[in-house]
Parts: sequence; C-alpha cells; structure tokens
Amino acid sequence: MTDALRVAIAGLGTVGGGLVRLLEEHDGLIAARGGRSMRITAVSARNRNRDRGIDLSAYAWFDDAAAMAGAAEADVFVELIGGSDGVAKDACEAALKSGKHVVTANKALIAHHGLALAALAEENGVILAYEAAVAGGIPVIKAIREGLAGNRISALHGILNGTCNYILTAMRETGRAFGDVLQEAQDLGYAEADPSFDVDGIDAAHKLAILTSLAFGVEIRFDDVAVEGIRAISPADIDYAEEIGYRIKLLGIAERTAEGVFQRVHPVMVPTSAPIASVEGVFNAIVTQGDFVDTTVLEGRGAGDGPTASAVAADLIDIAAGRGGPAFGVPAADLQAVPTLSLDRHVGPFYVRLVVIDEPGVMADVTAILRDERISLENVIQRGRDPGAPVTVVLTTHETGEAAMQAALRKIEEMDVVVEPPHFIRMERFQS
Amino acid sequence: MTDALRVAIAGLGTVGGGLVRLLEEHDGLIAARGGRSMRITAVSARNRNRDRGIDLSAYAWFDDAAAMAGAAEADVFVELIGGSDGVAKDACEAALKSGKHVVTANKALIAHHGLALAALAEENGVILAYEAAVAGGIPVIKAIREGLAGNRISALHGILNGTCNYILTAMRETGRAFGDVLQEAQDLGYAEADPSFDVDGIDAAHKLAILTSLAFGVEIRFDDVAVEGIRAISPADIDYAEEIGYRIKLLGIAERTAEGVFQRVHPVMVPTSAPIASVEGVFNAIVTQGDFVDTTVLEGRGAGDGPTASAVAADLIDIAAGRGGPAFGVPAADLQAVPTLSLDRHVGPFYVRLVVIDEPGVMADVTAILRDERISLENVIQRGRDPGAPVTVVLTTHETGEAAMQAALRKIEEMDVVVEPPHFIRMERFQS
Repeated sequence: MTDALRVAIAGLGTVGGGLVRLLEEHDGLIAARGGRSMRITAVSARNRNRDRGIDLSAYAWFDDAAAMAGAAEADVFVELIGGSDGVAKDACEAALKSGKHVVTANKALIAHHGLALAALAEENGVILAYEAAVAGGIPVIKAIREGLAGNRISALHGILNGTCNYILTAMRETGRAFGDVLQEAQDLGYAEADPSFDVDGIDAAHKLAILTSLAFGVEIRFDDVAVEGIRAISPADIDYAEEIGYRIKLLGIAERTAEGVFQRVHPVMVPTSAPIASVEGVFNAIVTQGDFVDTTVLEGRGAGDGPTASAVAADLIDIAAGRGGPAFGVPAADLQAVPTLSLDRHVGPFYVRLVVIDEPGVMADVTAILRDERISLENVIQRGRDPGAPVTVVLTTHETGEAAMQAALRKIEEMDVVVEPPHFIRMERFQS
Repeated sequence: MTDALRVAIAGLGTVGGGLVRLLEEHDGLIAARGGRSMRITAVSARNRNRDRGIDLSAYAWFDDAAAMAGAAEADVFVELIGGSDGVAKDACEAALKSGKHVVTANKALIAHHGLALAALAEENGVILAYEAAVAGGIPVIKAIREGLAGNRISALHGILNGTCNYILTAMRETGRAFGDVLQEAQDLGYAEADPSFDVDGIDAAHKLAILTSLAFGVEIRFDDVAVEGIRAISPADIDYAEEIGYRIKLLGIAERTAEGVFQRVHPVMVPTSAPIASVEGVFNAIVTQGDFVDTTVLEGRGAGDGPTASAVAADLIDIAAGRGGPAFGVPAADLQAVPTLSLDRHVGPFYVRLVVIDEPGVMADVTAILRDERISLENVIQRGRDPGAPVTVVLTTHETGEAAMQAALRKIEEMDVVVEPPHFIRMERFQS
C-alpha cells in the first residue's frame, strides 16, 4: 500500500467544513477509489476559535495559509479562501513552489491567474486542479478536459451562476420584481450581502473564461469577456418571453470561429424547448458542442458546501490515484493566444421592449429607424390602445448585427414619444 | 517526447470507421491532450474488401481479431466487434493476457464478463476501458468513476436506449402505434432488423448492470436485472399519461438499499417536470443521486459513429496520458457481492388501464379487488358511457407493493367484463 495522501486545507468556511466532513465520513470509500488512504494533516483559517461544528484538534493549525502552503507536512494544498489575489494567490504559489499539488475552488483566482499558475505547476511537476471552481458539483472540467478530449469543441453555453438563475426562476414563477426577489435570496442565503459579483455577471464570467480556455485550448482572457448582468430584467420582459415561447436565462456563451474566440455573459432569451430553458432555481448546466460527440449537457447543483466538497474530493482522489495532466488539457505553453472578438461582432435575433406614447405615426417612425439600419422584424406585439398615454410595444427581429441594433436603439431612445430607454435582450435559437 | 501510443482496431463497421476518421483528423489535438501522439498500427475485420470510404492501406491487416490481439505491434486493443461471447471475448482476453490495454464499446461483453475481464486486466497491469459501452458520447463512466468519486451514490436512473426513446417520442408526437413507428425507425437505421435487443430492454439492461456495478461498487449482475420492454405501450397509454402530466420513458433504475441492490428496466411514467422527461428522440440521459453532490444529470447522444468514436478516443487519450485505475473504480476483488432485490420488492404508484364492458357494478367490483389488496386509488378517469360496450377506465394508485398490484391485476383479468388483459405502467415521482 502506498503512503496516505496528506492534505492541508486552507479556508474553513462552509465549503471547508463540508470537505472535512466528506473526507472523514467517506475515508474508506475514498481509499478504495483512490488506491490509497487520504489524511488531513493541517488546516488554516483566519479565526481559530470559531465554532465550526467539526473537531479539528487532530490537525496542525496554521493562522497563515501561505505559511502552511510552504511548511505543512502535506502532498496537496487545498485552497478554499477565495479572492483573485492576496492570500489565496500567495498561498497557491507557495504551495506549487514547494512541490505540493494544489486543488482550488477559487474561480476568480483561476480566471485571473490560471495560466501563470498552470505554468508554475508544470515547472514544479505537480497538479493544479480546479473542478470546484466551475459549476460546483458538476464534473464539467473533467468532462471537457478528458471525457470529450477527442473532439474539437466549437461552442459552449451554460447557466453558470445559481444565484441569478434562482432570481430569474423566482421572478418568473411569482411575477415579482428583481429587487424583491434579490432581497429574498439574500435572506435565504442564496445571495451575498453585496450581490454584485453574482447579479452583474462577474462570477459567471470567471467561470466562462475558465471553460473557454479549457474547451478551445486558448489562453485565459477574463478581461475579454463581454459582461452584462440581470438587474435590468423586469417582470414585463419575463411575461413577454413566456408569451413568445422563450425563457430568460443569464448565460455564459463561448464560440470558437476562424477569426478568434467570442466570450459573453448576458441575459438571453432561449426557446422553452432548449435543454437549458428547463434548468431552474439554483441548478447550473453546461451545454457543449463537439464535432464528433455533438451536443452534451451536464446539469447539477452549482454551489453549496456538499457539491463543492464533492468536486474538491474528486480532484483529490485523482491525485491519490496518480491521474493527472496539464491544468487546461494541454501544456500551458501550448495554449493559443487568439484574438478575442468584441460584442460588436455578435449577430443574432433581438427582443426589444419600448414604452411609447400612443399616438399616430409612432410605429412608422420606429420601423423606419429599424429599416434604415437594415434590421428585419420577425414579430410585433402591441396590445390595446391608449391614445396619448404610454403603451408597451414589443418587437423581435431576425438575425441582426449588434452594432446596427445598438445604433437603432440610440435613435429610438431619442424619439420624443419614447418614455423609457429601450429594453433589449439578445435571443438565441438553441435547439435541443 | 514519449513514444507514440500504438492502437490496433478490431471491427470496422460504422463505429470503427468513425474512430479511424477521428484519430486521423484530430491527430494533432489528440497528441496535445494525451501528451504523446497516437498511431493506428493494425486493423481487423471480417471482410477486407468492403469499401469503407477510408484508406486502411497504411495499417497491418488481420482477418482474425484474436490473432491481432496477441500478435499486433500495439499498446492498446480496441474492440468494436460486438456480442457478449465468441470473437469479441476471445480477442479481449488475448489482448489483456499479452499485456495490451483494452478499450471496448461492447456493452454485452462488459455486462456479462466485465468482472472477469477487470480482474484479468489488473493481473496483467493494464487498463480495461469501456466509456463507449454506455450512453455513447456521454462521459458517464468517467463522471461516475472519477467525477463523483467522493460520493456514496444511492440511486441512478437513465434513458439508456436511444431506439426506444426515439420510438416513444415519435409515438407521442404522431399518435401512431408502436409497430408503425418501429418500422419507420428500422427504415431510418435507428433500429436493427431484429429489434428485440433494443425494444425488449436487453440493451438498456446491459448498460444499467454496468452503471450499477460502477456506481455502487458491487459485482456486475446482469442476470439480476428485472427487464420489460416497450412493445406493450399503446398510443392510449401515451395520451392518458399526457393528460395526467406524465410522460412514458423506458428507464433503467438502480437503487442501493440496506438490504441490497435493486436493478430494473421497464417503461415508467415520469412527471413532465422531471429532467428526464424532456430528453427526447435518440438522446440518452443519466441522473445520479450522490450524498454530497445531490442530483447530477448527464445528457447527450447515446449512439452513432461520432459519439461512440468520441468515447473510445477519450479512453485512448486517458491511456496515452497515463490516467487509469481499476475498471469499476475499485479493484475487482473489492467489488461487493450483495443480494439483488427482486421486482416483488418494488413499491410505487401504478397506472392501470382497463377495457371493460360498461355495465352497472363494474367499478364497484374493480375497486373492491383493489381494496382487498389494500391498494389505495389516487385518480380514476372514465370518460363517457356506452352501456353494454367496451369502455376504457384508467386508474392511478398511491404507493403500492408490486406483489399486491400483480395479485389485483390477476383478479381483475378474471372478471367477465374485462375484455383485454389489464395494461399497467409503474410510475416514478422524480423531482427536478
């Protein structure tokens, strides 16, 4: 029997606590599946005295994660601290340099520094693993890196933030406004006190940047992700979407074209028949398109202590079993530096909701603006009449270039009869 | 650079041809992801002269797969012959004994002989890999064996046969009868000339037996799978299911209880809101329940040359990269021999459709039989009246033991006014 794999854990919040529980409860199962036993040797957190409901007395305690990364008697350093820089980054670098494998759940760290960390891991002959950083318990990193490795992946899209999906689902089911539902999500612990990382799309963009690098074999470019969050989505948009057979989701979308890579996170109207449309509440899902395998969908819980601990444990078992490879599927030096396409290059159908004063000639003026930008309408919904008062007009377009659409929206906004800035949502026609 | 991984391929049907194409088209990508190049050295099939649309002249030709397994200059033997015994088994055994890794897409072989082959692979220090044997391109074997390895899995269910799912989907969408749709599926190449392996549930049972062994760490017991196919499903059943918010799927279901393992393949009515309900056409899906990760869903194409070649390629890339482990997640000797629970132990709601002569007292007699077996009704649908003529009565029950239900159905069938043997379908209340 090989020696036990010695594990040092930095960060003892809910995920760290969940991981300690998992490793203790499933020690036999983990030893059987990893081919050797696993043993926690050291732990680190900011506050030693906090009651975490778990007995940590058997493990060496470090106040300083970076010190533990260097000094602990450990083969693997597990980073559950969070944040793209500071302690988490210092500690991971220290661990890699001291010849320890690193397992992290930190999406911000990998999105910002994944390439450098991957190279550092290779230099030191150790593994950098981050299954828990994307989509919680769903083994999507492994699936793309290994399970679909025989394919050229041309596109992927996913629901990558459970908080936003919970909010959009609750808005649809209850008809309530964004702010109300956000407050409820905060009360239930599904959203942070400062929700901006989630609801403004940053968290989803971190995860998308990681998936993009892995799926397409390109350098990670978090700063190149076009990002819009869900704050502007209103119950009216959700109702109109439903009426035309669509659902609104915050998606991360990545495409590989001959000219470069396109990465974007924004609200999308998807047909209710698309697999992703029925992924509701806190669940996440990722849909990939491979040239031989075609469509693959992976769905599960995107966050929470149990799912995240499950993903960390999978990485640890791989390391115990001697299963490894470069962090992004190919050596860091082989990741391609390809151009990023800006959102201006996007082409697709749009949904536009206008609130206009109901008077003669308004529709003629709006449609003339669209015509001048060569935008072709698919559908117009105007319900009821209320001469002289504000009414809602909803338009959907055929395939339209982003730049033309934005130009048209600017012109429409300048019309005297338009009483709110135009609302628009990009549509995607994903098939099952 | 390590030497190229040398691959010998036995079986050059559509999947074999797809694999040759994949390995040739993606040689650069595969070398990058596997850390070494891959090279086909030998091929084998029954008919050397058949035009397969691919150039095989660069590869050594063997008429006899077992001879190739022993003699070829190869590190890996890929078995795409099919069949649980005969040439496929002989060749895989010969390959393992000669120190070659084996990658197979053969579900029947693994379901019948997986345990012995896994032990033989371990004895010879080589890998036995079979991702392509279950659910085509979906990396479900890897997901369960590695991605969810930190979990105790308590249950799984899945759509494991694309032919049956295609037939049930087409019956629902067109209202046509089983025989009609089967004929069409045969014409389209989705069903074999002899469809019994598919429509009688045998193929799904092969796959379920493999997943059960892997997920629960138990010895494979194909003969213990309770199996019913879809021949008895009628358009009437599909319509009534729709009416009460359900859809009919052929599912493989495995559960691990304190008393043993329960494996069954049969038509199931699932709520339309369950993730598995919206998996349509030739798609497959597998839903697992892990104690830390909760529900995970994997969906994709379950068959076809591209998806199957994708799965075989993933296994080959793992071998090239040195990623491996025991075939069923733990050493073959550690797989537990646990009792199999018979279908008699099943408890759940049932759907029952009766065709009875419409005369006074019939419902009283039917419900008395159910009451005597302590079966509690949830719902009764009887539409219209036609005194003296056959009418349809549909019942759904609360949780009911299989034995009680079967006893009640036998008594109902003996009633003079019952003009067809009762139709019944087990229901499952899967939540999303």
